[in-house]
Amino acid sequence: MPKVRILMGSKSDAEIGKNAKALLDELGVDADMVVASAHRTPERVERLVKKSDADVFIAIAGLSAALPGVVASFTIKPVIGVPVSGKLGLDSILSVVQMPPGIPVAAVGLDRGENAALLAAEIIAIGDPSVAESLLAYRKNMAEKVIADSEELC
Amino acid sequence: MPKVRILMGSKSDAEIGKNAKALLDELGVDADMVVASAHRTPERVERLVKKSDADVFIAIAGLSAALPGVVASFTIKPVIGVPVSGKLGLDSILSVVQMPPGIPVAAVGLDRGENAALLAAEIIAIGDPSVAESLLAYRKNMAEKVIADSEELC
Amino acid sequence: MPKVRILMGSKSDAEIGKNAKALLDELGVDADMVVASAHRTPERVERLVKKSDADVFIAIAGLSAALPGVVASFTIKPVIGVPVSGKLGLDSILSVVQMPPGIPVAAVGLDRGENAALLAAEIIAIGDPSVAESLLAYRKNMAEKVIADSEELC
Amino acid sequence: MPKVRILMGSKSDAEIGKNAKALLDELGVDADMVVASAHRTPERVERLVKKSDADVFIAIAGLSAALPGVVASFTIKPVIGVPVSGKLGLDSILSVVQMPPGIPVAAVGLDRGENAALLAAEIIAIGDPSVAESLLAYRKNMAEKVIADSEELC
Amino acid sequence: MPKVRILMGSKSDAEIGKNAKALLDELGVDADMVVASAHRTPERVERLVKKSDADVFIAIAGLSAALPGVVASFTIKPVIGVPVSGKLGLDSILSVVQMPPGIPVAAVGLDRGENAALLAAEIIAIGDPSVAESLLAYRKNMAEKVIADSEELC
Amino acid sequence: MPKVRILMGSKSDAEIGKNAKALLDELGVDADMVVASAHRTPERVERLVKKSDADVFIAIAGLSAALPGVVASFTIKPVIGVPVSGKLGLDSILSVVQMPPGIPVAAVGLDRGENAALLAAEIIAIGDPSVAESLLAYRKNMAEKVIADSEELC
Amino acid sequence: MPKVRILMGSKSDAEIGKNAKALLDELGVDADMVVASAHRTPERVERLVKKSDADVFIAIAGLSAALPGVVASFTIKPVIGVPVSGKLGLDSILSVVQMPPGIPVAAVGLDRGENAALLAAEIIAIGDPSVAESLLAYRKNMAEKVIADSEELC
Amino acid sequence: MPKVRILMGSKSDAEIGKNAKALLDELGVDADMVVASAHRTPERVERLVKKSDADVFIAIAGLSAALPGVVASFTIKPVIGVPVSGKLGLDSILSVVQMPPGIPVAAVGLDRGENAALLAAEIIAIGDPSVAESLLAYRKNMAEKVIADSEELC
Repeated sequence: MPKVRILMGSKSDAEIGKNAKALLDELGVDADMVVASAHRTPERVERLVKKSDADVFIAIAGLSAALPGVVASFTIKPVIGVPVSGKLGLDSILSVVQMPPGIPVAAVGLDRGENAALLAAEIIAIGDPSVAESLLAYRKNMAEKVIADSEELC
Repeated sequence: MPKVRILMGSKSDAEIGKNAKALLDELGVDADMVVASAHRTPERVERLVKKSDADVFIAIAGLSAALPGVVASFTIKPVIGVPVSGKLGLDSILSVVQMPPGIPVAAVGLDRGENAALLAAEIIAIGDPSVAESLLAYRKNMAEKVIADSEELC
Repeated sequence: MPKVRILMGSKSDAEIGKNAKALLDELGVDADMVVASAHRTPERVERLVKKSDADVFIAIAGLSAALPGVVASFTIKPVIGVPVSGKLGLDSILSVVQMPPGIPVAAVGLDRGENAALLAAEIIAIGDPSVAESLLAYRKNMAEKVIADSEELC
Repeated sequence: MPKVRILMGSKSDAEIGKNAKALLDELGVDADMVVASAHRTPERVERLVKKSDADVFIAIAGLSAALPGVVASFTIKPVIGVPVSGKLGLDSILSVVQMPPGIPVAAVGLDRGENAALLAAEIIAIGDPSVAESLLAYRKNMAEKVIADSEELC
Repeated sequence: MPKVRILMGSKSDAEIGKNAKALLDELGVDADMVVASAHRTPERVERLVKKSDADVFIAIAGLSAALPGVVASFTIKPVIGVPVSGKLGLDSILSVVQMPPGIPVAAVGLDRGENAALLAAEIIAIGDPSVAESLLAYRKNMAEKVIADSEELC
Repeated sequence: MPKVRILMGSKSDAEIGKNAKALLDELGVDADMVVASAHRTPERVERLVKKSDADVFIAIAGLSAALPGVVASFTIKPVIGVPVSGKLGLDSILSVVQMPPGIPVAAVGLDRGENAALLAAEIIAIGDPSVAESLLAYRKNMAEKVIADSEELC
Repeated sequence: MPKVRILMGSKSDAEIGKNAKALLDELGVDADMVVASAHRTPERVERLVKKSDADVFIAIAGLSAALPGVVASFTIKPVIGVPVSGKLGLDSILSVVQMPPGIPVAAVGLDRGENAALLAAEIIAIGDPSVAESLLAYRKNMAEKVIADSEELC
Repeated sequence: MPKVRILMGSKSDAEIGKNAKALLDELGVDADMVVASAHRTPERVERLVKKSDADVFIAIAGLSAALPGVVASFTIKPVIGVPVSGKLGLDSILSVVQMPPGIPVAAVGLDRGENAALLAAEIIAIGDPSVAESLLAYRKNMAEKVIADSEELC
């Protein structure tokens, strides 16, 4: 039973979704992925949220990115929103971040599927020490890569 | 049976909604008004849209203003979206305007309840000559007021 | 007699205009298309609006996109404005959306010719059940495509 | 016969218009002032521009500030546009500045009626040495006021 | 032992912090609150994060709001960032949202302390059914309030 | 003796400057062109402005585009500012438009060298009927091109 | 002989300038203050910069804030620019920050006179250990105030 | 012992860092360069700042560019921040410029590594006449290049 469900608003968000899923796999967090549009398939979004036993949802969308908020309206599980870049950029960021009081969405940065995965893993890791260990290892690798980059470049 | 249904995302949008309704009344267009939040009461929004026989919907919301798009996802009737001003302004405008392909929303300007009413009346007027006459009279009055203002000020 | 008249502010808006017209054709809504600039040919715009019997106007323009508002100043028919992207993007969006009180324009998203066509068709469909059927079929296809995309990708 | 015609899009722009006129008076440039809305009274704008013998036009407007561009579409005289501040500010600035190729507008800053008057006077001064002298005196006074302010404050 | 630690970057963020804490109390989630500035007291932030056993951190800051990211750099627990409004608004939103890859922050909207509390509670509720019940009751109350508002206003 | 002096802040603005000069040539307005940077060569700018007998100055600059304002500080002749696009766009627009009270600059749109030339010609044409005729012919050609484009495309 | 010269573009910037001077006094750095406008008194700015023996300049200005860049064009001493808030805010920030290559300005935040003073003191402190001690004491006080605020509020 | 330490937040900032270092070399200012991320390697940043005897720090970062502020939190030496461009641009500019009161950062323009180097050299030059001479020569070359460009182009 997947712990994280990833919803993408459109086929064009596939790369961001796949990166998120791949990183969750690497961290030992089971996840599944679906395409479902808040505007084109509202009942499908409702069903895919309500019927899921996931502990965390990741919703990826561009433009007037309603998907994360709509997912959040159907669940009290944490919902992570990933704004997707387009001609403006500010539109999707503000649509995901500026949620009204009462229904929170956890916004990550523009196109930041990997940060959505890491945040989901951090949430799962509160109750799962093995994921916490994966996260610590991931951070250690990142830090070592910074040092290696420094030595290579400077 | 009201021709126009006005949905407000929150009690704080009441003034804009009431102005829109008052102008529709003045133009001879029957309208009703409800509070329904896309995020706090998603099923209520769905029910209030699907059960309505209105020809036009007006949806008023601020911040990450998902309401107009969510209303549009449940109907093929024209949906007019009114972004409401707050600390930023750009957030609600972009959330209402930047709809993805396939589900249109007709955005009017920030806090422009009266323009939403006029646009709704213009749509109704295509099939109702008496509303068209009201609109022509309204425009004539506006133009005369510009001339009166000019004489008073200049 | 065309039900929808599409005005493009410049030759460079042709692709967006043609997409809108093609979709209106597909939905069974008769439309014609003209190039007319609010700034370079103001009398032409006035004539093309006042002499038309169209029920809906679509006006497509970039930069300081005055065309939709100027079209709206000459008619009480609904006017749909399509802002066209350029170096900034925000300029055309705000020029189309932020109309003053009294003269409404129905703004759709940046470069969203197809949404302008769908919104025009929704307005026509109020009085024409065959267009309503086309719209319902169009939505059904879109929703099925989302499911097919989901199955292909996930 | 006034050399400068000031057009205000709405009564609410009166203070900016009056400041501009007062400064033109002070500089010895004859000016008149009218209210005329590009959207509410398009024919009036056309008539007030075409029938005028003014050498320079000043057009003052907020929101989707089409007035300066519309005035410019009816004349080859220089047109100065004054964007008026509102809830956003960027909307009127971009609407006035971002004119398409072929029809120029000379934009001054947000609410800068006095700079519109000075620019108009600079244009008139090319052919009128007495206005040039007024402008030089005005600049001298400004510079002296900077020094006086410096002495008072520092 | 508090489950949530709230860090405020400055005394001026106190109201947002207190609202967040009050809501966590109401939802049955134990929380504590400290003032600690990423820029003025960097070691204090590090110590207050590393020495805490909290499951979730909430970091509240304005301007170049580095606090949430700095907190996140010291822990693999989920960090919720609350941008605080000031003269611009966009500065704190973008500083909180646009985190680089590898170190996620969960951004909520401008001044949205209550949504930070709700998101923290949603995370705690994954492992604590009594908090989940509190959240469901909170949502039910909100939805009922929408209906009551609708009846009162419409 | 050239009537218009074009100043470019940097070599990279050459294309915009050359377009402006070519259009002035075509309209029968004598112009010269120089590179002079407000920041790198302040005395050169001062000298090139004060020693010139031009009736109109055009100043072209990007980023923090101080050149138009600095030119204006040395003359009471009309100064037209052309903001040049770069990574942001808004920076040069706002730097050119938002002049303080007392020293006007006539801003045209981003990269709009041709509009700067037309505005300069409009100013010259007040006292030179042959330039006025060139401008009328230019406008007529533009309008005819719109009609030709319409016939070709529609 | 003052080590720091503070230039304010206008009388309305006086409060920010006085705060900067008061803090420099407190830190033991000798400073003087003048009003001088890049646009209204260009020669005065040039003279006040070239004749000064200050080691650091602070330039405070709003709108199209050319003053810091103009000061920098006349000296190879470090120039600190303080953008002043107005109707937009972004205008002065971008005018101060986005300097072209070759002439640097050190921008601090909107209305941040105290940070300009601290930065100037940091520069002076490189060669003056007593100023360095003042800065260390200032930082210590700030940090202690954060702790005191925390104890008072939490 | 290097006078300037350049910190880059990520490998992708290498080109900007190398340009800054090359220009410092050319100006006769000794500098070293390291990669260190405020978010991925916070302790490394702290150590690299506290252990350095540099007189000036340059910190280069994109997105939510916390690095300059974090460096500044650990030192009373002047810190120059270089915002790096990405999908938005405004995010890194505002994160670097909008520092809270008490901890200054000297922001230069987007991707302006060379201006960071020049500003650092200006600071060093206060106490080192040979660097001052290099800077004067650099400015002279720039000014001559403007004149050469003018002769070539005009």
